[in-house]
Amino acid sequence: MRRGIVGQLWEWESELDQKILYSLPVIVFGLLAIGFAFYLARDVLSRDKGTPGMQDISNRIYEGAIAYLNRQYRTIFSLAIFVAILMGILVAIFEQNHQVERGIITSLSFLAGALLSGLSGFIGMYVAVKSNVRTAAAAQHGIGPALTVALRGGAVSGFLVMALGLLGVLGVYGAVYQFAEGDIARVAETPFWIVGFAFGASFVALFAQLGGGIYTKAADVGADLVGKVEAGIPEDDPRNPAVIADLVGDNVGDCAGRGADIFESSTAEIIGAMILGVALYQASGGDDIAWIFFPLVVGAFGLLASMVGVLFVRPGAEVKDAMGELNKGFYATAALSFVFLTVICLTMLPEGGWQFALCGWIGILTSFAFVYITQYYTAGSWRPVKDIAEASKTGPATNIISGISVGFETTGLPAITISVALLSSYWLGENVDAYAGAATISSGIFGTAVATMGMLMTAAYILAMDTFGPITDNAGGIVEMSDAPESIRAITDELDSVGNTTKALTKGYAVGSASLAAFLLFSAFLDEIQRFSDEPISRVVNLAEPTVFVGGLIGATLVFVFSSLAIRAVGRAAGDMIEEVRRQFRADPGIMAGTSIPDYRRCVDISVRSALREMIAPGLLALIVPILVGVILKWEAAAGMLMVGTIVGVLMAIVLNNGGGAWDNAKKYIEAGNLKDDNGNVLGKGSEAHAAAVVGDTVGDPWKDTAGPSLHVLIKLLATITLVLSPLFV
Amino acid sequence: MRRGIVGQLWEWESELDQKILYSLPVIVFGLLAIGFAFYLARDVLSRDKGTPGMQDISNRIYEGAIAYLNRQYRTIFSLAIFVAILMGILVAIFEQNHQVERGIITSLSFLAGALLSGLSGFIGMYVAVKSNVRTAAAAQHGIGPALTVALRGGAVSGFLVMALGLLGVLGVYGAVYQFAEGDIARVAETPFWIVGFAFGASFVALFAQLGGGIYTKAADVGADLVGKVEAGIPEDDPRNPAVIADLVGDNVGDCAGRGADIFESSTAEIIGAMILGVALYQASGGDDIAWIFFPLVVGAFGLLASMVGVLFVRPGAEVKDAMGELNKGFYATAALSFVFLTVICLTMLPEGGWQFALCGWIGILTSFAFVYITQYYTAGSWRPVKDIAEASKTGPATNIISGISVGFETTGLPAITISVALLSSYWLGENVDAYAGAATISSGIFGTAVATMGMLMTAAYILAMDTFGPITDNAGGIVEMSDAPESIRAITDELDSVGNTTKALTKGYAVGSASLAAFLLFSAFLDEIQRFSDEPISRVVNLAEPTVFVGGLIGATLVFVFSSLAIRAVGRAAGDMIEEVRRQFRADPGIMAGTSIPDYRRCVDISVRSALREMIAPGLLALIVPILVGVILKWEAAAGMLMVGTIVGVLMAIVLNNGGGAWDNAKKYIEAGNLKDDNGNVLGKGSEAHAAAVVGDTVGDPWKDTAGPSLHVLIKLLATITLVLSPLFV
Repeated sequence: MRRGIVGQLWEWESELDQKILYSLPVIVFGLLAIGFAFYLARDVLSRDKGTPGMQDISNRIYEGAIAYLNRQYRTIFSLAIFVAILMGILVAIFEQNHQVERGIITSLSFLAGALLSGLSGFIGMYVAVKSNVRTAAAAQHGIGPALTVALRGGAVSGFLVMALGLLGVLGVYGAVYQFAEGDIARVAETPFWIVGFAFGASFVALFAQLGGGIYTKAADVGADLVGKVEAGIPEDDPRNPAVIADLVGDNVGDCAGRGADIFESSTAEIIGAMILGVALYQASGGDDIAWIFFPLVVGAFGLLASMVGVLFVRPGAEVKDAMGELNKGFYATAALSFVFLTVICLTMLPEGGWQFALCGWIGILTSFAFVYITQYYTAGSWRPVKDIAEASKTGPATNIISGISVGFETTGLPAITISVALLSSYWLGENVDAYAGAATISSGIFGTAVATMGMLMTAAYILAMDTFGPITDNAGGIVEMSDAPESIRAITDELDSVGNTTKALTKGYAVGSASLAAFLLFSAFLDEIQRFSDEPISRVVNLAEPTVFVGGLIGATLVFVFSSLAIRAVGRAAGDMIEEVRRQFRADPGIMAGTSIPDYRRCVDISVRSALREMIAPGLLALIVPILVGVILKWEAAAGMLMVGTIVGVLMAIVLNNGGGAWDNAKKYIEAGNLKDDNGNVLGKGSEAHAAAVVGDTVGDPWKDTAGPSLHVLIKLLATITLVLSPLFV
Repeated sequence: MRRGIVGQLWEWESELDQKILYSLPVIVFGLLAIGFAFYLARDVLSRDKGTPGMQDISNRIYEGAIAYLNRQYRTIFSLAIFVAILMGILVAIFEQNHQVERGIITSLSFLAGALLSGLSGFIGMYVAVKSNVRTAAAAQHGIGPALTVALRGGAVSGFLVMALGLLGVLGVYGAVYQFAEGDIARVAETPFWIVGFAFGASFVALFAQLGGGIYTKAADVGADLVGKVEAGIPEDDPRNPAVIADLVGDNVGDCAGRGADIFESSTAEIIGAMILGVALYQASGGDDIAWIFFPLVVGAFGLLASMVGVLFVRPGAEVKDAMGELNKGFYATAALSFVFLTVICLTMLPEGGWQFALCGWIGILTSFAFVYITQYYTAGSWRPVKDIAEASKTGPATNIISGISVGFETTGLPAITISVALLSSYWLGENVDAYAGAATISSGIFGTAVATMGMLMTAAYILAMDTFGPITDNAGGIVEMSDAPESIRAITDELDSVGNTTKALTKGYAVGSASLAAFLLFSAFLDEIQRFSDEPISRVVNLAEPTVFVGGLIGATLVFVFSSLAIRAVGRAAGDMIEEVRRQFRADPGIMAGTSIPDYRRCVDISVRSALREMIAPGLLALIVPILVGVILKWEAAAGMLMVGTIVGVLMAIVLNNGGGAWDNAKKYIEAGNLKDDNGNVLGKGSEAHAAAVVGDTVGDPWKDTAGPSLHVLIKLLATITLVLSPLFV
């Protein structure tokens, strides 16, 4: 019997001992993170709430956001209960060995995943909405305090999401494990039983991200097109009837949506990695349950690293480089993750500690690569954004042509990064001579799983930086609308622009992890299929089979049509908003004169209704197509769909995220006065070039904030739905 | 020994007899088609050349087009000779059995393919450029004569392309066959030896389509943005310095480019199908070379059907429905193809005549499905185009959002069509109990090949309709510029709008055939790999292997980055053109006043230089990436790249073609006065909505005429390049 160092030191009597030992860090750091989140929430909530004017606006945003979330969750959970029951019945019918049990467990874990996902999104958003006005108030005392409030408010969401994810997976796993204890074959099955949890998380994330994304961009596009372009009033002007809806949108889209996205990413990836650990556990003859627990333990230490990272950011009142401050925390988190991961691999894993540690490093490096590539393509200082700005000189058409070209181009470097990371981590894992070479393929795939886990360690901090975005965005809006002094606006503007960067980086990070995880989830699917197949399958998904090819074709098409529906939803919802804003301007000229207050609530209502209506079609498409492919064309076609769908989904998400980000920053580049004509005159705000850039920015809005992020969820939904329903596909 | 009916009737003594018999229709109909093309060319050239004003403009277009083609071909053939030599050496080194011979044959057939491709493009364009002024002149006598001239001028290109393709493949095949006669194993190899021919065709097509596509859209976008948008002068106004370049562009892009595209499609698909026939030939014990000749014979009868179709179109002076006239010819061609194909399958094929005939029908029906789907998405009478037009009311941003959404959506129905066609033709072929079930997989794949051949039968007619497009477009320009009466302009306008439809349909047809052929070419690649592998391969391309997955990822990424480069090329080249046009307007106010003639030649020159410069980067990318993947990651990764790259390439081409077409027709829909505001007022030319639609149309230009068609070529280039270089990938 070989064990990792931990195993050797702690001379356990039984598998249960191992299990308790490995559960400890998850429980301790998970609860610690929840406590930390509450500490941060209290810290933020106890701070200055600002002037009455600020509070008034903040309250309107709060009301709008909570009202939306209530209605959205009601819709989602009605659907979820229906899906849970149906799925439970189907799984029970088609599952060959454990009939009813398995169906019930799948349903229950689905609901648990859905509930926890909803809960973490809700609490995170609650604190974010409360943090915005406090950030605005803190900005009165300098940029440092404002930055601290916004980051801590964002971190509440980050820690809750990751901690609930880890504890949820552990809890469901522990519950299922009771039935299996002592029986290797059944212990080996336990991770498969809990995939319902990941599917539940994906399910909620899909609708949360779609609904939130449609909401935020319908309001944003509507507010911009009538307000900025037609009426010529600045952003966040209180005369714009859609301005509150826009501010609410930042919270329900960027905050609640992204929270649900990261929640489902982490749970799906952890459960997938646990499934891959099963093969090594079995190869160990049932000795080393460490393989199955490894992802949970890594995640737990990632939480610890992120907590240290957040505490690391303690700026004074004056901050020269706000992004640099946030980066300090990120670097601290990443450095600690490096150390923790190495130690875990070397002490916990019975075989190939160093090789797997290297795999983890590859994962962390990949996240850095994605962050830098995203910056290159979306930040104003490099060629792509400058190209778009230059193209704006000849009008909106060339701006759009250039932006689309940049968007398509941005797939190149990430694809190379993914390829190198996947092949090298697979190769490292493959070369672990695990159990005398009994598990070469399994250890290779486990290598890619470790890389994914490495990348996931910084997730809580990344999500904190991401939620920083909508908080500062809202703070800026509150400052603008409450007629606060120019100096405060300058501070929130600076933080807002940092927030835009962190939002873009998070998307890069999310796509990177989705693409690394693709192979892991795909492999888990093959393992799952094996369990339902009467004869041994050879882990072969043969592209030369027509059904596999057709499955792949449909998977790729699904990505295009889904994106189409998501983009169109924003177009339609924005159209409704535009009509309403125009109507209010026409009906009451006092609004533009500033003598009467517009009817904010109606605009909020329109956003709510549009978002809830429009999220249904793409959501159902994403659910139904994979099921049809699997049921009609069987598992190999489903595998082809999953794989090609993931490839195309990742690339398309990169196109949409980065293309949208580049358009946005090309506009900012022009607004900052960086664009000059042939004679050296600045082409700034109000120029033709700027108007062209605003068109590009508007086109990019549904790309980067609705369709792109929704694709992150779609990719993982494809994996979780096929995992859960695999009994139907054999 | 079982033979088809032909085999039974004609009691041949040797394989040579069969070969001669099956070569006969190819030679006869091939030569007949060439003769027919010359007859049509003489017929067109002998007609009225129009007024001196018309001739002057036509001559300028002619000079510009020929000058461009000369320079373009010089560049392409310099590259081609280099590639031929390098490839010959590499193949000779890596090929295990026939060393030097094979290298030389590959090089020579590559050059033959390249030369014939260039030749058919050149002659076709020569006649097209001569036809435009004659169409303009014929329009003086009514729409019927004009339609006849334009169709016949276009048909020259169609018949030359297809006839040279068929005769070229037969010639190269016959030359290689000499070495192999009498030896089954070597006869079975012959089709593999001539893939160089298809690669040569793809090579020329890639650069011809890229260069032509960049040329035409740089001129078009440049002319539109300064002329229509800034200066407010109508399309084809002689005061616009870029107008001649624009008219030249229609010929070098739509005419020469598409000709090269169809040439390489047909040769690649025929050679691929011949390779697939080899397996059945071998299963027959060398008795039935009919399997190998089948694609050539089908192609030959397709030529015959198309000739009848062209002669079928004999309108009187008055034509109510010009599109209906062209459709008459198409229906005649399709009906004849149905009959011919059925007879060929039943008489020539030794096994499964009816099943394969059904496969062929599926192919023909698929071409109809693609044509109708394309119409639905790009014609003004249905929902998608109307949606875009409606979205134009709220400005260019919503127009673009709506257009992108429509473009993405258009992948759905074609994907379903392809899936059904592939699976059903495979299933039919699989159920042919060929040679006592010895060749189930081979006959299944051959079924998909027969479907592709069925689709290809109408190619000559389709290409004639396609070239009809630039001829009538040019005729309209000539009429406009030569101050001809309004009534003639009305006729050419109507034909031009029909030409836009036929151009869109051809693209749908080209994508459809590319997607059906994908599976065929992929299977041919696997057969080819088998020949170079020391051990038997299992025709398995396992997506669960990391290298295959990475190959697929890179294939998909190649499509995005290639599209990016093609679109950017147009943006940059158009930028050059805009600067030049603006410069001329500034330098000489007499141009706008109509008192002095602009410097057309300089604009033509700029187009030429930009096109030749900008076609290099995407072209080299398309050549180098597949080689790198194959050499570094080996054949399975290359197979993954080929397959996923094809899927994504087909879908992206559909997005770009249809999205661009829909934008174009949304603009026309508004210009036709079909868009109304809430009060029922028409929002026509000059309205804000129209300006927004012009932006969309401009964005769509590089989509539908540069990147989209170039992707057709890229897809097949991936197949031919991997086929040719497969010795390096094992």
